[in-house]
Amino acid sequence: MTLVERYGLPPEEIERRSFEIIRGLVPDLSGTPEEQQVRVRMVHAAGDPTIARDVHIHPRAVEAGVEALRSGAPIVTDVRMIAVGVSPGHCERLGVRVECMLDHPDVAARARAEGTTRAIAAVRLWGPRLDGAVVAIGNAPTALLALLDLVDAGVCRPALVVGTPVGFVNAAESKEELRRRDAVPSITVAGWRGGSTLAVAALNALLRLATGIHGYLG
Amino acid sequence: MTLVERYGLPPEEIERRSFEIIRGLVPDLSGTPEEQQVRVRMVHAAGDPTIARDVHIHPRAVEAGVEALRSGAPIVTDVRMIAVGVSPGHCERLGVRVECMLDHPDVAARARAEGTTRAIAAVRLWGPRLDGAVVAIGNAPTALLALLDLVDAGVCRPALVVGTPVGFVNAAESKEELRRRDAVPSITVAGWRGGSTLAVAALNALLRLATGIHGYLG
Repeated sequence: MTLVERYGLPPEEIERRSFEIIRGLVPDLSGTPEEQQVRVRMVHAAGDPTIARDVHIHPRAVEAGVEALRSGAPIVTDVRMIAVGVSPGHCERLGVRVECMLDHPDVAARARAEGTTRAIAAVRLWGPRLDGAVVAIGNAPTALLALLDLVDAGVCRPALVVGTPVGFVNAAESKEELRRRDAVPSITVAGWRGGSTLAVAALNALLRLATGIHGYLG
Repeated sequence: MTLVERYGLPPEEIERRSFEIIRGLVPDLSGTPEEQQVRVRMVHAAGDPTIARDVHIHPRAVEAGVEALRSGAPIVTDVRMIAVGVSPGHCERLGVRVECMLDHPDVAARARAEGTTRAIAAVRLWGPRLDGAVVAIGNAPTALLALLDLVDAGVCRPALVVGTPVGFVNAAESKEELRRRDAVPSITVAGWRGGSTLAVAALNALLRLATGIHGYLG
């Protein structure tokens, strides 16, 4: 008997059982049913029930994100890992473009000219084009800080910021700064943890909500 | 004062401080200096010091991985997130090709014909071409199980398997099966946790070792 035969389950069954297990591990998911879907998918992507308590969802975040995606606002990311992780099928259905800020042709030149990182240069180059966008930053704390500087300066106001920079230096601080800005709906993970896979999980949960696919939680 | 000015640090300084903090949080990293580098980068990518105790590195894994990469073996991945996360600069220097198994043109047809998932179909299509490759599976437990079935059947023997499927159904089991196969050098994370970012961290650590860049741990 092969391993695939021994363990093999259809993907829908794996998903159903996974969410059942998560419900058992995190009995108090808190929030609206839609917020719970976002939280469950982030727990699923982390493989870690303890992440649930660190996920912060701004009270207007899910509504703002779903509305933006339904009206075809772009998803703009700091790293390519997020851009390729977002469900292309859902984006196509909604007419949502996915773009990585680093792919702007002037990033390297701008970073050199300003003596800054490519992540910061990319955010500044996008500037006003981030207005109304769903912006996902899953890697560099500095990219999130540069984005919040633009927001503070009135250059742009994203519809939603999914901010999950990861790490031990400035990641927690950058996410605290994000949460402190009540005018910007956000989804984030407090503390050191985070990363592209958590940003992707939140975005795909929102895309499912936007297309009306509620899955096993709906 | 902007946030970037307040928190801004050069990337090298962020990396140096991060690794210093990790050393403090995980005083006993265990293993050779090279294994410690892999482990530290995985902790860094997770933003979670508790992952260190779950990272399993086969005694021949680092040597086998570095040797394969130095001789230009390809990195073959189950998902695009890993393929785009791997450092393109290091791969170019080593002449290492990075390919995602899902990009094989016959994946959809094979999955339909066999009534199986695209992940399993992709692994089977690659089959003997995985021989000697550095194979990274960061998402689907079934892809890892299908790979081990090929190994058991003598179809291929990868130089190294970086196996970090994540989740609550079959992920832990698939990684246990991987660890049980002593003939296949592997890097993996026990239990539910894992994901593409951890696979990328391990691969990039190996690429740095292969190019002779030891960073702040060398």
